[in-house]
Amino acid sequence: MKIGMIGLGKMGGNMVLRLKQGGHDVIGYDRSDEALTPLRDKGANVTSDMDAFIAALGEPGERAVWVMVPAGKITQSVIDDLAGRLAPGDVIVDGGNSNFHDTQRRGEALAGRGLHFVDVGTSGGVWGITEGYGMMVGGPDAGVERLRPALETLAPAPDRGWGHMGPSGSGHYVKMVHNGIEYGMMQAYAEGFELMKAHKTFNLDMSQIAEVWRHGTVIRSWLLDLTAEALKNSADFDSLSDYVADSGEGRWTIIDSIELGVPTPVITLATQMRFRSQQEVSYAGQMLSAMRRAFGGHAVKT
Amino acid sequence: MKIGMIGLGKMGGNMVLRLKQGGHDVIGYDRSDEALTPLRDKGANVTSDMDAFIAALGEPGERAVWVMVPAGKITQSVIDDLAGRLAPGDVIVDGGNSNFHDTQRRGEALAGRGLHFVDVGTSGGVWGITEGYGMMVGGPDAGVERLRPALETLAPAPDRGWGHMGPSGSGHYVKMVHNGIEYGMMQAYAEGFELMKAHKTFNLDMSQIAEVWRHGTVIRSWLLDLTAEALKNSADFDSLSDYVADSGEGRWTIIDSIELGVPTPVITLATQMRFRSQQEVSYAGQMLSAMRRAFGGHAVKT
Amino acid sequence: MKIGMIGLGKMGGNMVLRLKQGGHDVIGYDRSDEALTPLRDKGANVTSDMDAFIAALGEPGERAVWVMVPAGKITQSVIDDLAGRLAPGDVIVDGGNSNFHDTQRRGEALAGRGLHFVDVGTSGGVWGITEGYGMMVGGPDAGVERLRPALETLAPAPDRGWGHMGPSGSGHYVKMVHNGIEYGMMQAYAEGFELMKAHKTFNLDMSQIAEVWRHGTVIRSWLLDLTAEALKNSADFDSLSDYVADSGEGRWTIIDSIELGVPTPVITLATQMRFRSQQEVSYAGQMLSAMRRAFGGHAVKT
Amino acid sequence: MKIGMIGLGKMGGNMVLRLKQGGHDVIGYDRSDEALTPLRDKGANVTSDMDAFIAALGEPGERAVWVMVPAGKITQSVIDDLAGRLAPGDVIVDGGNSNFHDTQRRGEALAGRGLHFVDVGTSGGVWGITEGYGMMVGGPDAGVERLRPALETLAPAPDRGWGHMGPSGSGHYVKMVHNGIEYGMMQAYAEGFELMKAHKTFNLDMSQIAEVWRHGTVIRSWLLDLTAEALKNSADFDSLSDYVADSGEGRWTIIDSIELGVPTPVITLATQMRFRSQQEVSYAGQMLSAMRRAFGGHAVKT
Repeated sequence: MKIGMIGLGKMGGNMVLRLKQGGHDVIGYDRSDEALTPLRDKGANVTSDMDAFIAALGEPGERAVWVMVPAGKITQSVIDDLAGRLAPGDVIVDGGNSNFHDTQRRGEALAGRGLHFVDVGTSGGVWGITEGYGMMVGGPDAGVERLRPALETLAPAPDRGWGHMGPSGSGHYVKMVHNGIEYGMMQAYAEGFELMKAHKTFNLDMSQIAEVWRHGTVIRSWLLDLTAEALKNSADFDSLSDYVADSGEGRWTIIDSIELGVPTPVITLATQMRFRSQQEVSYAGQMLSAMRRAFGGHAVKT
Repeated sequence: MKIGMIGLGKMGGNMVLRLKQGGHDVIGYDRSDEALTPLRDKGANVTSDMDAFIAALGEPGERAVWVMVPAGKITQSVIDDLAGRLAPGDVIVDGGNSNFHDTQRRGEALAGRGLHFVDVGTSGGVWGITEGYGMMVGGPDAGVERLRPALETLAPAPDRGWGHMGPSGSGHYVKMVHNGIEYGMMQAYAEGFELMKAHKTFNLDMSQIAEVWRHGTVIRSWLLDLTAEALKNSADFDSLSDYVADSGEGRWTIIDSIELGVPTPVITLATQMRFRSQQEVSYAGQMLSAMRRAFGGHAVKT
Repeated sequence: MKIGMIGLGKMGGNMVLRLKQGGHDVIGYDRSDEALTPLRDKGANVTSDMDAFIAALGEPGERAVWVMVPAGKITQSVIDDLAGRLAPGDVIVDGGNSNFHDTQRRGEALAGRGLHFVDVGTSGGVWGITEGYGMMVGGPDAGVERLRPALETLAPAPDRGWGHMGPSGSGHYVKMVHNGIEYGMMQAYAEGFELMKAHKTFNLDMSQIAEVWRHGTVIRSWLLDLTAEALKNSADFDSLSDYVADSGEGRWTIIDSIELGVPTPVITLATQMRFRSQQEVSYAGQMLSAMRRAFGGHAVKT
Repeated sequence: MKIGMIGLGKMGGNMVLRLKQGGHDVIGYDRSDEALTPLRDKGANVTSDMDAFIAALGEPGERAVWVMVPAGKITQSVIDDLAGRLAPGDVIVDGGNSNFHDTQRRGEALAGRGLHFVDVGTSGGVWGITEGYGMMVGGPDAGVERLRPALETLAPAPDRGWGHMGPSGSGHYVKMVHNGIEYGMMQAYAEGFELMKAHKTFNLDMSQIAEVWRHGTVIRSWLLDLTAEALKNSADFDSLSDYVADSGEGRWTIIDSIELGVPTPVITLATQMRFRSQQEVSYAGQMLSAMRRAFGGHAVKT
C-alpha cells in the first residue's frame, strides 16, 4: 500500500525500511537532514518538504499517514497540521506512546472532520526492524482495515503480534498497560540479580545465570534474553548510573488503577522505585534520620 | 549413564522418561504403585523395592541417585536412608526445592562421609518432559561432572538451560531467586490484565491481548505463552478461586533479602499479595473499618 | 464574628455548635429538616430558606459563608449559587475535602468576581466539637484574616492546630497529604495487630497491647487512642466487614506523587490495599491460579 | 525494691536515675568509667566491679538484675555470666531488643536452673527518663510480680504504659511488632513531607505544617511532635545524610510475617526502603538501565 511516515527517528526510520522491504510504497518525512540521510542511503524515499510529502500520498480520501513522533505537544501539532492538509476518508495513525485520553479526544475530533484516526501502541524497540513490531491497534474499523497491509508487514508475521483491540484509544491503552507490566517484570529480574550478587557466599556469575535461565525455566523471556546479552558485555555495569528513567505509560497505568480502584501494587512499586532512583538526595530519608535522632538519640550520618 | 530416581511424581516420573529417551540406564523408585504403573506401562524400569533399587545402581563408588521428592522432612529422611546404603564416591542429587541452608548443611555432612551431594534447582514443571528442564546445579565438581550426561539429556539442549552455579547449596539458592522473580513477573501480568478487564470503556478481549503480546512485544515470555493458552480456554476464570498458593522459595527469597539488607520490594510484595489472597477475612481490614468508624463516624459495612 | 454555615451534617452541624459556644453569631443552612431539628433543639440559629440565610449574613462585602458539603458536584453547585448571591468583598470558605486542582480553579474564578475564596482542609472528625478541629487554610490573606476569629474558635486553641499554608488550594492540598499519611499510619497499625493476632504461641490480648502502647512508647498517637477504645469494645471485630472504604484524598496523593515523580510507596500501598479489600473476587488472583496450573500442574482451588 | 542494672548506656543509665528518683535501692554496673562518672555525679550507686555489684543485690533467691545491653552476643554472655552467679529464685530481666526466639530459648534454659527470666521490650528512647518508658513484659508470673515495683516506677504511671503480655518471649515479640509499626508510621510521615516539599507551587513551610498537624488532626502523634521539633531546628536537614539505619526488629517482623503467611506490605516496604537508602549504588538500577538500553536504544546515564 501507499503510506507516509512522519518522524524518522529510531522507530519511524526503521518502520520505513521494514515497510519498504515488505513491498509498500512508503514515503518518509522528517525536518532533520540527520534523520533523512541514512534512510536515503538505504534507498528509502524521504523528504523534508511537507508539501511534497503530502502530494506523494495519493488521492484525497485514500491517503494514509503514520505519525511516529515523541508523545507530547509535538504529536498534537503534527496531527493538527495534518488534519488541515488531509481530506475526509484519509487515515491518520498515531504510532507513538500518547496518553489514551488524548487519543480518545483526538479520535472524536478527527472523526468529526471525516478523518479516520487509528492509534497503534507499538512495542519492539530497536529490534522491531528485524523481528517485527508488536502492535496494539485502536480506532474505527474502516481505518484499521485500510492499514491492514502495512500492519501485516510491520508485525512479526501477518497474523501474529498485532490486533485490533477496540475503539479509538484502546490501542494506546493496551500499550500503556503493556509498559506497566514491563516495569514490573524488569524490576523483578533486577531485584533477583541484585540479591544474588549481594549473596557473596556462592560467588555467583550473573552472566552465566541469565544465560542458563534463558532455556527451560519458567522465567525465560525476551527481556531475559536481552539481559543475558547485556550481562555478557559487562556483568558489573560499572560504567552505568543506577538512575532509571521512566516514560509516561508507567505513570498513567498507576493513575488508571487509582481511577478504577483496582490494586496494582507491583506495577506501582516498580514505577516508584524508578522515582527513587532518580533522586539525588531523599528528603524522606533525611527526615527519617532526623526522627531517629530525635526519639532515640541514635547516631546518624551527616 | 546409569542413574536412579527416587520419587516418581509429576516431576520425577517425567524425568525418568526423558532420561530413558536419552538412552540412559535409569531405574525409578517410588513407594506408591499408583506412581509406578503409568511409568511401567511406558516401558520404564521402576520398583517399589528399595533394596532392589540400590542393587540396580551399579558398583559402589560409581552410583548416582537423583532424589525428587517434595521439599521438607521427607527429603531429609530419604537422604538419611540413602546415605546409610551408599558408599564413598557415590553421588546423591537433591532435585527438589529444598532450602539452600539445609542443602549446605547436608552437603557438608555427606561430604564428611565421602559422598558427593549435588543440588539441582529444577524449573520447567509439567513441560520439562518435552521442552527440557532448566537446571541450576550446585555442589562439588566431581559430583557434577559425574552427572553431566544426565544433565545434558534433561536440559533443553546439552549446552543450554543448565549450569554449575557454585558450591553446595548454590543450585537451590539460584532456583529460589528464580522463583522469587517468577512471583514478581506473574503478579505484574496479573495486575495488568485485571486492570484492563476493569476498564470497561474499551470492552477488551483478554485472550486476544495475551495472544497479540506473545509476538514482537517487550513483554513476550513463556509465562505469557501459558497465560494466553489458559485464557483461550476460559477468559473469565469463573470456575477458579482467587486463592493463590505459595511455596517456600518466595518466602525464603524475602528472608534472604532481609538477611542481606537488599531491597526486593516487588518480589516481596508479590509474595505478600499471595498471603492476602489466602485470607478468608482480613483482621487488618476489620481493624481499619473500626478505626474509620471511631474517628470519623464513617458508616462501615458489617 | 457573623458567619454562615451551609451543610449541617456531622461536620458542619458540630462546627455550628462550636462556633456558637465560642460566642459567634452563626447561622446554619441545610435543605433537610432532619439536619436542622437537632441543632435547633440545641439553640442554634438554622434555616432551610436560602434567601433568609443570605439575608442574615450581614452587609454585602462583609459576609462570610462556610460551605461544608461532601466533595464533588454538590460543592460546585453550592459555590456557584453562592457566587451569584454574594458581592465583592464577601468570603466563601470550602471546608470540605475538595480536590486542590478544583480549588485552585475556583479560587481564580471567584477572585475574578471580587470574592475571597478560602479553602480549609479540616481534620478531626466527630471529635472536633470537643477537641477542636485541625485546620489547614489556603487562600488570599484578606479572606483568611477575615475568618481568623472563627478559625481560632474552631481550632483546639486559638494559636494551635490551624495555619495559613499558602495560596488558594494549599489548604486542601496539605489536607490531602494529611489523609495519605493517615492511610499509611492506619495500615501500619492494622498490619502489626493482625500479625500479633496470628502469632498464636503467645495468645496475646490485642486490647491490652493497644492500651499499653498508648503511654510512653514511640508509636503512641491519637489513632492508637481510638484503636484502643475500639478494641475495648470488641477485640475481635467479628461483626465488621474487612471492606475498607477510601475517599478521594488517598488517591489524589498518589496521583500527585506520580505527577511529581516523588516516591510514596507506603502511602500508595496502603491505599491500594484498600482497593484490594474492596474486591469480592480478584481476577488477578484467578489468573495467577490459572498460570500455576498451566506451568506446574499445581492443584488449584476451584 | 532492691534492683541491679547492668549496662549504663543511654537507656540503662537513665533507668537507674528514674528508679532512684522513684525511691528504689538501685545499683548500676558497667565496665566503662565513661558510663559510670556522670551517674556517680548524680548520686547514683554504680560500680565496675561485678563481684561488688552481685554482693549488693541482696539475699540469694530475692535478687533482681536488669540487663540493658545492646542486642546480640553481649546479651548472651552477660546472661551466661549472671546465671553462674545467681541462685534459684533470682530474677534476670532482659530489657534490650533481643530476638524473641532467643528469649524463648533463654527463658527455658534459665527456668531449668530455677531462675526467673523476664523479657521487657522497652520503648521511649532518650525521653523515657522524664516521660516514663513504655514496657511490654513477658515471662513467668512470679518473676513479673517481683519486678512490679520497678516497672511501676519506670512506666509513665504505675498503671499505664506497661503490661504483662504473656509467657517468655512475648514482651520482646510485642516490642518487635511495635518497632515494625514505627517503621511504617515514620515512612508514611516522611513520604508525605517529601511530597509536599516537592510540590513547589505552594511553597509550603514544612515546619509550620508539622506544628499545625500536632493539634486536632487525625495524624497527631508523639512521632509528629518530635518531627515538628526537629523541623523547627532545621527544616531542610541539609546537614543530614539520607541513609536510614535499621535495627533488627523491623527485619524480624517481616520474617515473622513470612513464617505466619500474614501480609504486612507497609511494614515490609518501609523496612526495605531503609535498605534502599543504605545503598551507595543500586545494582538493580544499573541493570534496569542496561535493559532499557538493550531493548529500546534508550540513552542512559553513565
